[in-house]
Amino acid sequence: MERKLSISGIYRLALYSRHLYSLNKRRDEYISSQELGDAIGHTATQVRKDLTCYGSIGEPGKGYKIEKLNAVLSSIFGRDKIKNVILVGVGNLGMALIAYKGFKLHQFRIIAAFDKDIRKIGRRIEDVLVYDIQDLKAVIDGMDAQIAILAVPPSSAQEVIDMLVSSGIKAILNFAPIKVNVPDNIKLQNVDMSIELDRLYYLLKNPF
Amino acid sequence: MERKLSISGIYRLALYSRHLYSLNKRRDEYISSQELGDAIGHTATQVRKDLTCYGSIGEPGKGYKIEKLNAVLSSIFGRDKIKNVILVGVGNLGMALIAYKGFKLHQFRIIAAFDKDIRKIGRRIEDVLVYDIQDLKAVIDGMDAQIAILAVPPSSAQEVIDMLVSSGIKAILNFAPIKVNVPDNIKLQNVDMSIELDRLYYLLKNPF
Repeated sequence: MERKLSISGIYRLALYSRHLYSLNKRRDEYISSQELGDAIGHTATQVRKDLTCYGSIGEPGKGYKIEKLNAVLSSIFGRDKIKNVILVGVGNLGMALIAYKGFKLHQFRIIAAFDKDIRKIGRRIEDVLVYDIQDLKAVIDGMDAQIAILAVPPSSAQEVIDMLVSSGIKAILNFAPIKVNVPDNIKLQNVDMSIELDRLYYLLKNPF
Repeated sequence: MERKLSISGIYRLALYSRHLYSLNKRRDEYISSQELGDAIGHTATQVRKDLTCYGSIGEPGKGYKIEKLNAVLSSIFGRDKIKNVILVGVGNLGMALIAYKGFKLHQFRIIAAFDKDIRKIGRRIEDVLVYDIQDLKAVIDGMDAQIAILAVPPSSAQEVIDMLVSSGIKAILNFAPIKVNVPDNIKLQNVDMSIELDRLYYLLKNPF
């Protein structure tokens, strides 16, 4: 009985999942909605509401059994299988993302990188081969990859997105700080790193 | 009459602010809570609730006047002044963050970078000088900077955070995918880029 969650709801579920992981508790232990809420800065009520969307799996007076909650969250985020991802744009950000340990930890694997710079094409970065962006469609045709990370300059972002879409990519994580367009059937997430600084600034000015 | 907002609430306010900016509407035009909600994937009710926290500034039947809403959001996020930020860790990610145009756009300015690598110390990256991390306290003593961005490997994250705290930094944006600790009076935001992939994966598997 799954219900649709808001973008913030998905975010909270991802945070619950990470908190459980960091706890390293035994599978037969319990965690309360209060503890989960405290860990991510939300109320126990919010936690119960979010998790109720996925079946009421808490036990009165005990909370959520780690083993069950882990299973639910793992299923939501596909933690039981490796998800292939391609990356376009092998500048500083692209290289940092290829080396980023957080992706592997959550079963995302960058299987190919693309750039237009002839000095980068053919190089390997942390075992990931850099291909010519012109070969995008041909290279990913043989790969099981639906997700792309976009780490190109703002001026190239829309052009590369159009190439990704026509090559069969279904979901795009865009790091370029510019508004881009995708067809309705393509999922797009824009990562705006300045939002994190906004949030931090807010917390600094409104301590609670 | 400000009320405290949840972490997700602050995030939504930051998104409203960005949507207004991207619209480039005239200052005397109006925007409805429905349009604001649609733009960021939330309901009109949520928008009204968020904005009511900052005084009921909507006009019945018309919506929010761009000029007023902009003024409120600018004040919340201090858009009227430049906020100084320091950066620690001049690897690929650090270099990408120094070059990131989104920070400047929202009035954040990286005024100094720090690293322990002798080959990087003394270099300038996009006009930002790289200092020896050992000189952290001495360098920032003369600067008006309360916010630090941490882009060091997970193994050094806690050690550098302790240095930042003892040097007077009040807020830290941590990109290292590891759990770190700060004293109660220090604000910490962890940026986990894999969460964005989780969210994208969820949207891909649960289309709506």
